[in-house]
Amino acid sequence: MDEEVKLLGSWLSPMSRRVEVGLKLKGVSFEFSDLDVFFSKPPELLQYNPVHKKIPVLIHHGKPIAESLIILEYIDETWADSGIRLLPKDPYERAMARFWAKFFDDKCSLPLWMSCWTEGDKQQQILAESKLNLTTMEGALKGKKFFGGDEIGIVDIIVFCSVYWAEIAQEVVGVNVINEEKHPVLCKWMKETVDSNVLKDYMPPREKLFCHFQTYKDAIAALMTARFGSN
Amino acid sequence: MDEEVKLLGSWLSPMSRRVEVGLKLKGVSFEFSDLDVFFSKPPELLQYNPVHKKIPVLIHHGKPIAESLIILEYIDETWADSGIRLLPKDPYERAMARFWAKFFDDKCSLPLWMSCWTEGDKQQQILAESKLNLTTMEGALKGKKFFGGDEIGIVDIIVFCSVYWAEIAQEVVGVNVINEEKHPVLCKWMKETVDSNVLKDYMPPREKLFCHFQTYKDAIAALMTARFGSN
Repeated sequence: MDEEVKLLGSWLSPMSRRVEVGLKLKGVSFEFSDLDVFFSKPPELLQYNPVHKKIPVLIHHGKPIAESLIILEYIDETWADSGIRLLPKDPYERAMARFWAKFFDDKCSLPLWMSCWTEGDKQQQILAESKLNLTTMEGALKGKKFFGGDEIGIVDIIVFCSVYWAEIAQEVVGVNVINEEKHPVLCKWMKETVDSNVLKDYMPPREKLFCHFQTYKDAIAALMTARFGSN
Repeated sequence: MDEEVKLLGSWLSPMSRRVEVGLKLKGVSFEFSDLDVFFSKPPELLQYNPVHKKIPVLIHHGKPIAESLIILEYIDETWADSGIRLLPKDPYERAMARFWAKFFDDKCSLPLWMSCWTEGDKQQQILAESKLNLTTMEGALKGKKFFGGDEIGIVDIIVFCSVYWAEIAQEVVGVNVINEEKHPVLCKWMKETVDSNVLKDYMPPREKLFCHFQTYKDAIAALMTARFGSN
């Protein structure tokens, strides 16, 4: 491959999927290394991301970049003239995109996911946190087609991947994390984005993810509890 | 003022100081609003940063931007041709700067600070965390004059402000958070950066900060404990 672009990721990870989507929207060819990171840390990961030991890692001409938001900015700057812009051109709009991307990652992403894998009081606490922060997030979307305005951008990509995963997980475990009553603006945007087919084609098949969650739900809950705090 | 640049900050905050330094290194004139945020949230803060209710907030032509790293990127893009570059030009080097800035903010900044305001087991745990993460941070600096190479950049600014604050606080409270034995690379860089006078002139006077910490140390410890967890 001329560009020597390789992505260390996993079909199972919404963080990895963000980067896949970014590369595809930019029309960048890449080799995908689908790592099994569920119970172990493959040597490639330790070599290319020794600080965090996490996917995704983008390797471009042999040089690694970690952290999904940082990778998406790198993709946007490196292939500036290909495909769509992931971040707006205007500095103020770029700052707003960064602000909401960071807010989602700091405040929404983990609670949204952990709401599905906790129980009892802990779950109720996380559900409340998730609801509150997603409502704040809706403020950035109100009255707009996409988070960035009329065009899909970095915030749409990252929120879409997480909500896609969470909607399937909540069905498997029977928790009501996100729905039209709680988050009408987000659900409307999700539905319209799915209908427009811009991002949905890049997601793993719903049934495949559903089966995975169904099969491994106890193992996932145990792993999440070990990683992010007791139940 | 032509540019209508206003910074909501506090002379007491290293996060606010980052932005002040960024603006000064760019040669941008600005009005500084020194808010008393120690025990309250001034109305301007609630108006201009309703999501996080925190300083710093940069207001440019009436439009607010929050989060210090996002503000620094905005400053670099908006006044691209003035003063020094805060982020490198090359996309890979930019990604590296963003990676280490995020690592410092996620993993070092709070432990470095909280090491000074905790006691007992909690303090020992935070000191260990701080030491480990700052050692990782030193990996990004080894063999280089500044984090970004030969020129001062965004990572130098944010680390310098935090270490400057922590060194004074540790002297007041009698804790050994950072020293040449623990972090030789970082301490050498700190000393050389102080000697070169590029950043030191933009810091608050050492004595003023020392007196503040000395006077309010019990109140600061109580506030930090309330904000970031029990002792």
